[in-house]
Amino acid sequence: MPLLTRIRGPRDLDRLSLEQLDQLAEEIRTFLVDAVSKTGGHLGPNLGVVELTIALHRVFDSPKDKVLWDTGHQSYVHKLLTGRQDFSKLKMKGGLSGYPSQAESEHDVIENSHASTVLGWADGLAKANQILDRGDHVVAVIGDGALTGGMAWEALNNIADGDRPLVIVVNDNERSYAPTIGGLANHLATLRTTDGYERFLARTKEVLERTPVVGRPLYETLHGAKKGLKDFIAPQGMFEDLGLKYVGPIDGHDIEALESALARAKRFGGPVIVHCLTEKGRGYQPALQDEADRFHGIGPIHPDTGLPVKASGADWTSVFGDEMVQLGKEREDIVAITAAMLQPVGLKKFADAFPNRIYDVGIAEQHAAVSAAGLATGGVHPVFAVYATFLNRAFDQVLMDVALHRCGVTFVLDRAGVTGTDGASHNGMWDMSILQVVPGLRLAAPRDADQVRAQLREAVEVDDAPTVVRFSKGAVGPAVPAVGRVGGMDVLREPGTDTPDVLLVSVGALAPMCLEIAGLLDKQGISTTVVDPRWVKPVDEAMAPLADRHRVVVTVEDNSRVGGVGSTIAQALRDAGVDVPLRDFGIPPRFLDHASRAEVMAEIGLTAPDIARQVTGLVAKLDGRYGSAAAEVDAVESARD
Amino acid sequence: MPLLTRIRGPRDLDRLSLEQLDQLAEEIRTFLVDAVSKTGGHLGPNLGVVELTIALHRVFDSPKDKVLWDTGHQSYVHKLLTGRQDFSKLKMKGGLSGYPSQAESEHDVIENSHASTVLGWADGLAKANQILDRGDHVVAVIGDGALTGGMAWEALNNIADGDRPLVIVVNDNERSYAPTIGGLANHLATLRTTDGYERFLARTKEVLERTPVVGRPLYETLHGAKKGLKDFIAPQGMFEDLGLKYVGPIDGHDIEALESALARAKRFGGPVIVHCLTEKGRGYQPALQDEADRFHGIGPIHPDTGLPVKASGADWTSVFGDEMVQLGKEREDIVAITAAMLQPVGLKKFADAFPNRIYDVGIAEQHAAVSAAGLATGGVHPVFAVYATFLNRAFDQVLMDVALHRCGVTFVLDRAGVTGTDGASHNGMWDMSILQVVPGLRLAAPRDADQVRAQLREAVEVDDAPTVVRFSKGAVGPAVPAVGRVGGMDVLREPGTDTPDVLLVSVGALAPMCLEIAGLLDKQGISTTVVDPRWVKPVDEAMAPLADRHRVVVTVEDNSRVGGVGSTIAQALRDAGVDVPLRDFGIPPRFLDHASRAEVMAEIGLTAPDIARQVTGLVAKLDGRYGSAAAEVDAVESARD
Repeated sequence: MPLLTRIRGPRDLDRLSLEQLDQLAEEIRTFLVDAVSKTGGHLGPNLGVVELTIALHRVFDSPKDKVLWDTGHQSYVHKLLTGRQDFSKLKMKGGLSGYPSQAESEHDVIENSHASTVLGWADGLAKANQILDRGDHVVAVIGDGALTGGMAWEALNNIADGDRPLVIVVNDNERSYAPTIGGLANHLATLRTTDGYERFLARTKEVLERTPVVGRPLYETLHGAKKGLKDFIAPQGMFEDLGLKYVGPIDGHDIEALESALARAKRFGGPVIVHCLTEKGRGYQPALQDEADRFHGIGPIHPDTGLPVKASGADWTSVFGDEMVQLGKEREDIVAITAAMLQPVGLKKFADAFPNRIYDVGIAEQHAAVSAAGLATGGVHPVFAVYATFLNRAFDQVLMDVALHRCGVTFVLDRAGVTGTDGASHNGMWDMSILQVVPGLRLAAPRDADQVRAQLREAVEVDDAPTVVRFSKGAVGPAVPAVGRVGGMDVLREPGTDTPDVLLVSVGALAPMCLEIAGLLDKQGISTTVVDPRWVKPVDEAMAPLADRHRVVVTVEDNSRVGGVGSTIAQALRDAGVDVPLRDFGIPPRFLDHASRAEVMAEIGLTAPDIARQVTGLVAKLDGRYGSAAAEVDAVESARD
Repeated sequence: MPLLTRIRGPRDLDRLSLEQLDQLAEEIRTFLVDAVSKTGGHLGPNLGVVELTIALHRVFDSPKDKVLWDTGHQSYVHKLLTGRQDFSKLKMKGGLSGYPSQAESEHDVIENSHASTVLGWADGLAKANQILDRGDHVVAVIGDGALTGGMAWEALNNIADGDRPLVIVVNDNERSYAPTIGGLANHLATLRTTDGYERFLARTKEVLERTPVVGRPLYETLHGAKKGLKDFIAPQGMFEDLGLKYVGPIDGHDIEALESALARAKRFGGPVIVHCLTEKGRGYQPALQDEADRFHGIGPIHPDTGLPVKASGADWTSVFGDEMVQLGKEREDIVAITAAMLQPVGLKKFADAFPNRIYDVGIAEQHAAVSAAGLATGGVHPVFAVYATFLNRAFDQVLMDVALHRCGVTFVLDRAGVTGTDGASHNGMWDMSILQVVPGLRLAAPRDADQVRAQLREAVEVDDAPTVVRFSKGAVGPAVPAVGRVGGMDVLREPGTDTPDVLLVSVGALAPMCLEIAGLLDKQGISTTVVDPRWVKPVDEAMAPLADRHRVVVTVEDNSRVGGVGSTIAQALRDAGVDVPLRDFGIPPRFLDHASRAEVMAEIGLTAPDIARQVTGLVAKLDGRYGSAAAEVDAVESARD
């Protein structure tokens, strides 16, 4: 890598020749395939933006100018060009983040991995530049997939309203995770296929100008709308109708063409769209041959074949996906919805089996939820499968469209809880808190594969309220059998005494950990009942009487401690007049840095030994054995915050 | 009203002549001005859609066909034509809702008053019609203002992707609450001003077809994109580029033209946009003369002059608005943001004083929040003022853009708590729950005008985290002075004893009620401290030690009980090992029917006597005086749920 290793920052690009830039691009591709094969990560999107990133850093002067990346998974090349070339611990604890990170570099701005935000950020930054009278530039890179999100539209509408310098690069690879759908995709396809329209320009203008009857009024109508001649020949009207200048389409792998277009856009001094055509997975044969998602995100693979280094076992997603196919066979009124993530959320098999009953709405969680309300009102039962963290986008729609109208819609939340390596914005740690406030909503947290199947079936039976089934990321653990039943709750462990000490409430996939905690407590002579509520909202009516038979209630959940299952059970106990001390364990109210799930869980004290130690301290305190328990109690206090 | 009183349902319109329909329209206008003057309500929007609503119900067959209203405040005419003509108790308890209501009529579908949802609903209903093989029609009416919302874009993109029958009526009055802003507005203005383009059609086509060099390829390019000739002459490309057929613009007050256009759109059998130009406040002189919002929503007025029947005193909104002007003078880096509600949220004076520092982003709360993150990162301090209920739309952006990036953005939530007459979707009862989970966010609930001013000032001083100031709707009460201070909290009442019984935590505007509760408890011999935390998030460090000096903690908040301030304080006490019994009073977790605020508060038991009675029962229970307190305790239990 003779060139790459000499790039310490963007300005080191200035002295390279065009030929050297092409060589640098090749070196970067080799580096990416090699590095990401070892660690896993977003390979395809980054292979697609090598030349674009080089051109951006040649034309703009980061960090004075702000170079912004939508979603952020395509920022690896940007990292390589801004002084970060150690990819050995990508997405691992202490290593580089898989997304931009302000802590890593002054060249990074937007850290979150939620799509379609970049234009809003750009609008705000451009406004601040204007207010503070700075001449800095803002350039925002957004994929065609992310343009399907409503935030992009809201931002375009605002950007068009001002005349602030702002360059929007549409990175058009015809796909987000999967091929982009919808009217917008068709429109972009039209732009792509109007090859040669540039040649029409001169001739047409000439003809129009010498045709007084038709040409002149036409020309003036368009001119009166402050638009150039070009835009009614190439149908890029959508952008220009909003008042945005349009440059393109540009070959996104031609550095010279990119630089020229970006420089022109920069000089213009107002809002401009630069439309670049790129190829996801460019230069890596296995990626190009993968029609589904061109290696969007991968685990460690063999670089030559693109095959996974190790095969994974059954995961939560596929358990859900298989059961959906079964349900689809049994009930013709079940339809499925995805927000541009057919494969990742496990709906591919359903889509193949029932092509008329699957809706990919684009990166549009709001629309997924509100159209689900319409579908349910129309008499079918929609199942919207989505990553837990992305449902936040549709909170208002879950509340005001689905719940208020008593619609039977099932939300399946994948990647719930600590997901780890994708960092703060991918953890699904908010759903069991914010959904608590939604009247009528029922929320299931299945603990194993059998329960995923069973609770999904229970969920789709409800036709007058929203239901939610949330589960973790990755491999599903072994079955955890119930040894008894109290109300609608599964007892996972009996205390072995009539006067038990602790009621341990286990939520979802944490069941094995809770059984381990109970075992550790047992060794301390503390008798423990372990119960899995299965449906954590509403709180089971049997919970308060059960709690009342114990001396302490302990809740353990893979969700924010704030307003979560523990808090809700505490409130239910208060309402029932059961003032048994309760301690709730969960994720502390802060953003979590990227690391493996196990590392994160250890860091936040969500491990069996940690929790057992703290519960032991609490019971000792209740027993009046303060001395021996003082250390543990201190540990309890300090672990919270 | 000889014609109106004979209309019992939409089909009664069928036998009226065009002349009679015009007469009916006049009768409806007279009825609306008369009725809404007495009760208050949304006058302007309904005066604008009289002819449109008549035409819709002539062409479509509701309730078999679904006639859907975006936001729903323009559904009064629809109510009149579907059997609901008693407007005497509009928006009052037991009277008609100010929005569509499924409980009122089978002709109503969407009840919520949040904008930009109708196209998503329509898409879902059309999909259900297709799945279940029904030939029913769906027609959705959306204002030009609501098209600025991202949900509308997400839906358009999906609707364009299918070929399901679906008629979109764009009710274009150039304003939502205020004149619509943004690139879209400019685009619609262009459509409106290309008068006469129809005449070009025939001639242009002819010229193009006989001009082989230019005309033929042009024609084919456009044709290849499945578009007609018309759309490159009139610049409605935005819609047609998405693949949507476009009809219009139509005079929205010409019933015959409307019927003709709607019938054509209905026959087409796929997605069609019908663009209608209407005049908000049509036919009512005072409304037309009000440039600000044309009587969008009004309280009771004199029908001749349009002046309010009674002048209102100082309200929360204007206290905030005046202080913003003061802050704007003192700090040049303060900017303000509104989502199409400049006047209602009190930012008009700020906008007049600092026209370069106000951003109206359209009905786009997501963009308001994310562009605020950009503004803050760019070095200024944005204040986004919004109704509390509408912030739900931007939850993900508050969390992932503002909080994760530690941006100093201040959110001012107006109309927080029970607002009453606008019904379920206008109550601002969720913010203090869902915002609890946002790391780093600080939330203030000022109790009076002085505190609004003081806490707004404290909020804009914070430059590394989101701050929220939330207050109620309507008149602000008298000043409630502090008699002491504990940590950062104001003591509003000392217990008068060293061994007090109750710590009463008062949140925001409920301070006078809490002092009343304390007075009632005093009469029962129960000594009470009343404390106002001022900043309810994070919980003040002085709270746990203070609570520990009392026998019972009682929290009272104008917010959902679930996950609210009470729950959070309870968790803070648990974490500190303070297991004093706590009871939390707030809004029960259900949707609230429209009624006055006082009626709603009485119904849900948020009154001083109700709460005092329940606290008395609890204290008696702790004293072991079960017998005398049994009734009260029962009341406590039954009031919950």
